[in-house]
Amino acid sequence: MSASAYQQLESVFTRLYRYQHLAAIAGWDQAAMMPPGGNDARGAAMAELSVLMHATLTDPQLNTWLASAGQEELDAAQQASLREMRRSWQHANLLPASLVEAKALAGSRCEHAWREQRKANDWQGFLQNFREVLRLSREEAQLLSDASGKGRYDALLDKYEPGMNSAEVERIFGDVKTWLPGLIRQVMDKQAGEQLLTAQGPFAVDSQRALGVEIMGLLGFDFDAGRLDVSVHPFCGGVAEDVRITTRYRDDDFMQSMMGIVHETGHARYEQRLPRELVHLPVGQARSMGIHESQSLSFEMQLGRSPAFLQLIAPLVKKHLGEQGAFDAANLARMYTRVRPGFIRVDADELTYPAHVILRYEIERALIEGDIEAEDIPALWDEKMTAYLGVDTRGNYRDGCLQDIHWTDGSFGYFPSYTLGAMYAAQYFATIRRSVPDLDARIAAGDLTPVMDWLDANIWSQASRWETAELVQRATGEALNPAHFRAHLQARYL
Amino acid sequence: MSASAYQQLESVFTRLYRYQHLAAIAGWDQAAMMPPGGNDARGAAMAELSVLMHATLTDPQLNTWLASAGQEELDAAQQASLREMRRSWQHANLLPASLVEAKALAGSRCEHAWREQRKANDWQGFLQNFREVLRLSREEAQLLSDASGKGRYDALLDKYEPGMNSAEVERIFGDVKTWLPGLIRQVMDKQAGEQLLTAQGPFAVDSQRALGVEIMGLLGFDFDAGRLDVSVHPFCGGVAEDVRITTRYRDDDFMQSMMGIVHETGHARYEQRLPRELVHLPVGQARSMGIHESQSLSFEMQLGRSPAFLQLIAPLVKKHLGEQGAFDAANLARMYTRVRPGFIRVDADELTYPAHVILRYEIERALIEGDIEAEDIPALWDEKMTAYLGVDTRGNYRDGCLQDIHWTDGSFGYFPSYTLGAMYAAQYFATIRRSVPDLDARIAAGDLTPVMDWLDANIWSQASRWETAELVQRATGEALNPAHFRAHLQARYL
Ligand SMILES: [Zn+2]
Ligand SMILES: [Zn+2]
Repeated sequence: MSASAYQQLESVFTRLYRYQHLAAIAGWDQAAMMPPGGNDARGAAMAELSVLMHATLTDPQLNTWLASAGQEELDAAQQASLREMRRSWQHANLLPASLVEAKALAGSRCEHAWREQRKANDWQGFLQNFREVLRLSREEAQLLSDASGKGRYDALLDKYEPGMNSAEVERIFGDVKTWLPGLIRQVMDKQAGEQLLTAQGPFAVDSQRALGVEIMGLLGFDFDAGRLDVSVHPFCGGVAEDVRITTRYRDDDFMQSMMGIVHETGHARYEQRLPRELVHLPVGQARSMGIHESQSLSFEMQLGRSPAFLQLIAPLVKKHLGEQGAFDAANLARMYTRVRPGFIRVDADELTYPAHVILRYEIERALIEGDIEAEDIPALWDEKMTAYLGVDTRGNYRDGCLQDIHWTDGSFGYFPSYTLGAMYAAQYFATIRRSVPDLDARIAAGDLTPVMDWLDANIWSQASRWETAELVQRATGEALNPAHFRAHLQARYL
Repeated sequence: MSASAYQQLESVFTRLYRYQHLAAIAGWDQAAMMPPGGNDARGAAMAELSVLMHATLTDPQLNTWLASAGQEELDAAQQASLREMRRSWQHANLLPASLVEAKALAGSRCEHAWREQRKANDWQGFLQNFREVLRLSREEAQLLSDASGKGRYDALLDKYEPGMNSAEVERIFGDVKTWLPGLIRQVMDKQAGEQLLTAQGPFAVDSQRALGVEIMGLLGFDFDAGRLDVSVHPFCGGVAEDVRITTRYRDDDFMQSMMGIVHETGHARYEQRLPRELVHLPVGQARSMGIHESQSLSFEMQLGRSPAFLQLIAPLVKKHLGEQGAFDAANLARMYTRVRPGFIRVDADELTYPAHVILRYEIERALIEGDIEAEDIPALWDEKMTAYLGVDTRGNYRDGCLQDIHWTDGSFGYFPSYTLGAMYAAQYFATIRRSVPDLDARIAAGDLTPVMDWLDANIWSQASRWETAELVQRATGEALNPAHFRAHLQARYL
């Protein structure tokens, strides 16, 4: 008996998964291990692998099998699997190779120049390259829109957050905008009178690492199937069977590395607990960027910055970094919930972070829809930073609209994932708290099973079996509801 | 104008080089970084890559281009390049896929079982799997012999040491056998009366590593294009642009890690100094296993264990491991030239090592030629160990014929490379000494340029431009001549 079309697809996607394994390890190595002299050869090898993966996904045979498999008798699991295969296929096949190549080139040129231009506060220089990136991104959005029937910006959003659309984002972010600026002011007033002890460094890197490893263990990271290393930009990489997370250490600050490790451990546990028997197929892989971030933010924001968790780990902080008053649980909680509007998204606290994301979403959507031009960005940036955060960024492009890498290579549609992730996470914990009223007491006592079991059953083990909206509905009993996020922030910060 | 056949070949071999890059990094990671849980997924990914590389090399188009390129106008460099491409092609194309697969399977089964059988001293159990490995290796040898006109064993030898044949090996090893056993006895008598201070541990791993890194720097290792890490079995891996060497540390012994690092640094500098503009093609890659080992042994044996070099590094040993009499240069030289016949090849000293290799060569050649059967190995092993080293191995399979991995997966023909490498190295240094009479004084004073410049000009930069015999002839003015090896041993040990 010859293999069914669905079986043929499984074997192609299995092959692709193995290629992705090599790309992931080579990419991790490049960021965490590789000496600089290896960069050109590594770049060439990884580009060759990208060509191979793209050729595998654009093989005309695949289109035939996808059509035939749709006619075959498939069970529900296989139908979900086929749906996800089709989605992967579309990402690789909807755009002409010439556009993909042109955008990659323009993006790489713009990003490369941006690294210096940002330092030099050179917005005009940046514009020269960025106009072309924007032009090609608009072309991409139009083509994806024509093919999918979605709006132009929605078609880009769908790459990172499948199933999400801007009407939904608009509804959610619109809600947040009604209460967030006021809440920020309220919290700042409240915190103005707070006593806060500053931790005295230096904090030895080895000690910070040992602390991080102990916290990872507490959070259930499987060291038999993963590692912790160092890179300039922390990330979670590797493969589900061997997850590589990274952090960076500064000897005058332990807060960033410690909570960064908690964050990446959230990403890591999602990967480590994906269903092993399906992880070689798209349906067995992580659902979306927003859902991935909902795991890291469940760990970092819901769990990590909670007084209960900080009470649990305060003795570990003292054990590794030494005894000082700043490491008392209550003070740690104050340190990790300090609200200070600032210029930089990646340095933002939990409360002001959504403002940074909403601002970027509004600007990038207008850019893609053609409502504004690249030249209009700085004025809009200044206006929104003033309105949402009361921060004056005029003339400071470096710490303003030049601060992020995302737009330099045309990754429009990515930013909303961060805040959607934070909202999913708040909604999960609201659900968990309903059935576990003594959650905080259990966390403080070191029992994290209510959290881990819930995430495992409702998110990790579900991989891409359901579309995002259904995953969230099944897990929490309702659609994404920003009220949970607001309630969480009010409970924690007021 | 369409690309010439030779240009087509260059582009295929460039692609292959990039795939090899990924295989090398994934292999290094597996040995030096990967947690055990990642092993299955890594194995599947690397096997997929092997399939891809094999498919690339057996694409029928390649055969056509190889034939056409032979008719094109090529300069001498391109002709050498075409010769090496053809050699790579033959290795992948001379054997039917069914035999390659059967041998890989039998070899992997035999090797896997051997890991336990060796510990259990279970020769009879080993035989059950090994007979099939031998049968398939003989079939391979016969097919390669039919295709090349070489003898059966020579056809296997050619895989590792192209251009070498057993008549030549016979001539060289035959010579060694006339004087080596006597020399070993003479040296042992001499050393019996020697005073030797034993170094007192423990030796902190961090300190051993720091010492190793400093010695690597002294030897010219380019840390911008390579790394030093840890693995169970030390090796030199990675790619020419990013060489990854490993060692292993024991806190009760510094000698092994220190000289192991010197050895691997020899391999590494060969790779790092291959001609960058050609390294993506076979002609720009390392010549052979024997020539590669001649680099590590130039570093370890000719340079590393010389009194001059040990005089140079004795202060570094003391700096990192502490002040003690055992670290005086003269004592270090005695430690590193101590001759003690023993069971284990990888633990053998410079003088007894060739006896281990010659014994294996004689047995494996007879096995492949069909003069003996697998059952005959232990008796021959005992007989030769007694004759060459005066060591009684009867009944001790674990430390006898079960000690090496090479035969378990059918790597017959590999062993001679080790001693050929030692002999090439002795011949290089005889050549260097002729033009640099004060070589030892310069080494002791920290000036390694006479050695490095000579190796760079004569070996590293030459890559695979010449066949092995011509490379050696050009570098030293004569064919491989075991007299240099003998003279070196006599000068050092008598
Ligand atoms: Zn994240
Ligand atoms: Zn070696």
